[in-house]
Amino acid sequence: MSQFFTEEDSVETVNARMGVEINPRLEKVMASLVRHLHAFVKDIHLTQSEWEIMIDFLTRTGQICTGERQEFILLSDTLGVSMLVDAINHHRPVGATENTVLGPFHVAGAPEREMGTTISSDGKGESCLFEGRVIDLHGNPVAGARLDVWSDNADGFYDVQQPDIQPKWNNRGVFTTGADGRYSFVGIKPVSYPIPHDGPVGTMLGALGRHPYRPAHMHFIVTAPEFEKVVTHTFVGDDSYITSDAVFGVKGTLLAPFERVNDGRTVWRSPFDFVLTRAIAGQHSAE
Amino acid sequence: MSQFFTEEDSVETVNARMGVEINPRLEKVMASLVRHLHAFVKDIHLTQSEWEIMIDFLTRTGQICTGERQEFILLSDTLGVSMLVDAINHHRPVGATENTVLGPFHVAGAPEREMGTTISSDGKGESCLFEGRVIDLHGNPVAGARLDVWSDNADGFYDVQQPDIQPKWNNRGVFTTGADGRYSFVGIKPVSYPIPHDGPVGTMLGALGRHPYRPAHMHFIVTAPEFEKVVTHTFVGDDSYITSDAVFGVKGTLLAPFERVNDGRTVWRSPFDFVLTRAIAGQHSAE
Repeated sequence: MSQFFTEEDSVETVNARMGVEINPRLEKVMASLVRHLHAFVKDIHLTQSEWEIMIDFLTRTGQICTGERQEFILLSDTLGVSMLVDAINHHRPVGATENTVLGPFHVAGAPEREMGTTISSDGKGESCLFEGRVIDLHGNPVAGARLDVWSDNADGFYDVQQPDIQPKWNNRGVFTTGADGRYSFVGIKPVSYPIPHDGPVGTMLGALGRHPYRPAHMHFIVTAPEFEKVVTHTFVGDDSYITSDAVFGVKGTLLAPFERVNDGRTVWRSPFDFVLTRAIAGQHSAE
Repeated sequence: MSQFFTEEDSVETVNARMGVEINPRLEKVMASLVRHLHAFVKDIHLTQSEWEIMIDFLTRTGQICTGERQEFILLSDTLGVSMLVDAINHHRPVGATENTVLGPFHVAGAPEREMGTTISSDGKGESCLFEGRVIDLHGNPVAGARLDVWSDNADGFYDVQQPDIQPKWNNRGVFTTGADGRYSFVGIKPVSYPIPHDGPVGTMLGALGRHPYRPAHMHFIVTAPEFEKVVTHTFVGDDSYITSDAVFGVKGTLLAPFERVNDGRTVWRSPFDFVLTRAIAGQHSAE
């Protein structure tokens, strides 16, 4: 290896520069990053002007971020990276409820609500009863499971996207199961909506011939003592974007029935059971 | 392939989402980017918290950028990507002057100066006569070659980094060769300096056990009609950072002699010839 940078030994030259007493995991991650980054540049024979476009794209992606907007997560989501990171870190046995993306609209601290009550307070949308059980892999009810749920409103916006229009905590709530493991709450049948696409990621999707829509879904974070945390959605299965989710969040096991009931209480009913796995010793559900 | 995202087919799923009538080069670049990005995540088994650190790092890198500071270029430089992009795009015959990084401190519009005059106006540093020829691969002089030169001052700062302290255009100038292809100007013997390291890239270098210094160098952009543009430095060969340039910019062919002359005019003399290659038809020196 030359003492100076060369095209041939570019990876080795950069990685050899790392110090000897650094965090071994950081060293491994960075060495892999450099290897793949250089391989990308070489494979595609990246031109100087393409490099400039990428620098500019990354800069604008960073600059549009605010406390309420995270364009790099959006980039990760739309390139399938977020779902991939989740997948490799959450291999679960068949039958256990799978994870999907958290998304940028979760807000900690939503009101704890009585089982069976409604989370929707803007009077919009078609009401829907969400109900089912939280169980373990053997079908035993999980008591004390906490369901943190949220969805968009009938116009396709989360409350935090319209703080001046929607009531605070609209379509959000936290429910805790009793001994039977059952949960139920009234929300609306969610609607599909576009991810924020007025920034660099939206421009990218447009250039790639991709739409920015997500199929309609209800968000759930389900936690229980001694069980692995589940971060997931249930999807409206007949949504027209179900096979083209802009962030690749759909899994076949997460398609939920949405039955038109019109029983005087709600227009729809969506039954779904959450199947939790025991947390591995040393990990816990709040991880 | 499943109709939904899976760990196994993650690359194919994401890339299959691209439209049919998009820019074919963009399609190729993005497909390769997704392939390498997913391979990185899988190879290293990136954890959720490492992913969060990366999102945060990229966000802060974008947010610290201003008109005067480009942290993503610094990131590219320190990971060897800038030098790699330059290398693969500028294969030159043996004997031709090689490129190195442009760096963030070039300013267009520096004063055109008379051959032999000085570029240094702050009275600091050890004076140095830079002289030599601009020639082609056969040794013939190149007339009308334009040398845009710049360096730091004796304190290790470019004028644009200290607009309130240094005279405007300090250690910058543009010189044009006559029929003999010769150039000469007086500057200072440059000094080594750290790249900006008070931001995310500096933190990264620290965590990697790397210093932020660049060995002392004089910048040159050499252009001439019908010749390929050369963006390069000449390096002070005995600099203590010569084999550990923070941005990997050093090439053996760019080490220049710095001879102590003390001839009453300057303390140092640094002779260096620039050897240009003919521009390929369709390209030109201003590319």
